[in-house]
Amino acid sequence: MSDDMRFGLSRQATLPGPLRLDGGVLLSPVDIAYETYGTLAPDGGNAILICHALTGDQHVASDHPRTGKPGWWTRMIGPGKPIDPARDFIVCSNVLGSCMGSSGPASINPATGRPWGMAFPVITIRDMVRAQAMLLDHLGVDRLKAVVGGSMGGMQALSWPATFPDRVGAVVVIASTARHTAQNIAFHEVGRQAIMADPTWAGGDYYGGEPPAAGLAVARMAAHITYLSEAGLTEKFGRRLQAREAKSFGFDADFQVESYLRHQGLSFVDRFDANSYLYITRAMDYFDLAEEHGGLLANAFRATRARFCLVSFDTDWLYPTIESRSIVQALNAAGAPVSFVELSSPYGHDAFLLDAPEMNRVVDGFLKGGR
Amino acid sequence: MSDDMRFGLSRQATLPGPLRLDGGVLLSPVDIAYETYGTLAPDGGNAILICHALTGDQHVASDHPRTGKPGWWTRMIGPGKPIDPARDFIVCSNVLGSCMGSSGPASINPATGRPWGMAFPVITIRDMVRAQAMLLDHLGVDRLKAVVGGSMGGMQALSWPATFPDRVGAVVVIASTARHTAQNIAFHEVGRQAIMADPTWAGGDYYGGEPPAAGLAVARMAAHITYLSEAGLTEKFGRRLQAREAKSFGFDADFQVESYLRHQGLSFVDRFDANSYLYITRAMDYFDLAEEHGGLLANAFRATRARFCLVSFDTDWLYPTIESRSIVQALNAAGAPVSFVELSSPYGHDAFLLDAPEMNRVVDGFLKGGR
Repeated sequence: MSDDMRFGLSRQATLPGPLRLDGGVLLSPVDIAYETYGTLAPDGGNAILICHALTGDQHVASDHPRTGKPGWWTRMIGPGKPIDPARDFIVCSNVLGSCMGSSGPASINPATGRPWGMAFPVITIRDMVRAQAMLLDHLGVDRLKAVVGGSMGGMQALSWPATFPDRVGAVVVIASTARHTAQNIAFHEVGRQAIMADPTWAGGDYYGGEPPAAGLAVARMAAHITYLSEAGLTEKFGRRLQAREAKSFGFDADFQVESYLRHQGLSFVDRFDANSYLYITRAMDYFDLAEEHGGLLANAFRATRARFCLVSFDTDWLYPTIESRSIVQALNAAGAPVSFVELSSPYGHDAFLLDAPEMNRVVDGFLKGGR
Repeated sequence: MSDDMRFGLSRQATLPGPLRLDGGVLLSPVDIAYETYGTLAPDGGNAILICHALTGDQHVASDHPRTGKPGWWTRMIGPGKPIDPARDFIVCSNVLGSCMGSSGPASINPATGRPWGMAFPVITIRDMVRAQAMLLDHLGVDRLKAVVGGSMGGMQALSWPATFPDRVGAVVVIASTARHTAQNIAFHEVGRQAIMADPTWAGGDYYGGEPPAAGLAVARMAAHITYLSEAGLTEKFGRRLQAREAKSFGFDADFQVESYLRHQGLSFVDRFDANSYLYITRAMDYFDLAEEHGGLLANAFRATRARFCLVSFDTDWLYPTIESRSIVQALNAAGAPVSFVELSSPYGHDAFLLDAPEMNRVVDGFLKGGR
């Protein structure tokens, strides 16, 4: 394995812009941090864009620089995997609004020379996609062989053919949805309120001081429950106690599931910016692809000739199978070719990030099925 | 309607104790605030104990003194209702650990003359039941015609025949469970961490100053989502915007569901003590009736001759029907008479507090079915 494969080519592009955002603001310049794997073919026909989820980043198949952990989707991307740098030119960029090198609330506002904080403009999933398109222009990629994403990455993947119908040949949407439901919004709102309730959040103006770690950890804990299935939690933890013979009759983490959740919260604050969490959850809550297209989801797909592949997991209660089915129905109504499968997994929403041989077979078969 | 019916007889009993708690502590004295409706029959055979849920109180059928709202179960209790003060002597007491007049962390610790705060002993559902039994002794009620409760009230109702097998003739358990699952514990832990992350919580020593309102509001918001069904939230709010024509591209409550959740959080802090929330959620998480009886739930019911009635709701994902079924199986194994029905409702866990004519018919028929 070459160094390029292990670590990818990690870069940051400063794109001149301006990028006109859905909220009406013109953003300029636009920094986008990204990694690439493999080489763009002379005909440019082997480019695949990977879109990451809420707290993901560009380090899809290479070690994370802060945590040292392997890339978040090495099960899908790598030598011999469905997306293979020996064949494909793979691009993964940090979404607009995030905190791993792309423009976001922690970036410097050129007008003030200080971090944007809450003065950063509210963004949408479509804005993220437009920024990705600007990056692809910069990289000389005119058209994508495929765009692939799970969860919020799937929202971007869906938004791609709707926004740039001629620039993408195939779309893979895993464990995702075409709109956030009231329950989805509610869970995100709890997280945002937890962050904003933390006095160190200080209206988002905490850069240079202590971040609102306690609030962000609570937000992460609440969200994390939605990523796992009830059955998976029971299998993994049940009511087992944490390194004790009996209950403590106190408020320490008696149960393993408490300890696990606390760890999830604490480790998250080391790698993520609280304001980015606010902005990205807002973008997800705003996402309603039908609304962007006259209220009819099928309209989003009428202009594209892309092929679609949808995958859901039977224990995913964050974006349950019914959400994928409604996308499939819209694609059918639009006359777009689509394959869809619901896979069985005990792991809930997070299944797409875990070992899922069937998912890999589905994606592999779909990507090899055409150009 | 007499004043007694409208307002109940609101009282507080100071019971000498000591009450030996499951955690080993001897608590004394034990204050229990309670209301009664109706009159105890000369033979003492018409007493019904109503057990309230996590954030409930003794004001089951009379106006709440702080909020001015009607009692929380006037649909079940009142003239012509399944539980009728013209026939029954109805007792509802504030659980041990709560904040509406019964001993809890906001009460004065006699050893210091100051509020207990986190020095209050950790309690269990069984401790709540033992305190209720002490109150019944005080009231001259030897044996209950029935004990009735929903949610955490159902846990107490289940614990009654297991703890005092000869003191109860009938048990009604609605939308409840015999143990908290990993997911149940996880949601509660998020709420506790939200409270403890609030600097004004100050280790629980905030009495006399500002309470940790922001943390408690976040805890309530997270919990509130679990009380509603996804379908119910969609029906009630969907993605409808809050009194605006279009999205604000900001962080105000754009969606109605956000505004609703914020209101739930804010109004809760006016009526509830954050430390009580910690103690009562802990008691619920500790609840595992099988574990208290050698690991086999049926053992909990072998000594009683009570009849049982269980009701679940099909959209309740907090305590889903499968939890009621496992209780029914244990009752069957113990040879206890039990009737069980799963009712259809769009309202999730909260259905038991709402208008549910079928639930009323089931409870009415069950209570009239025997002594």
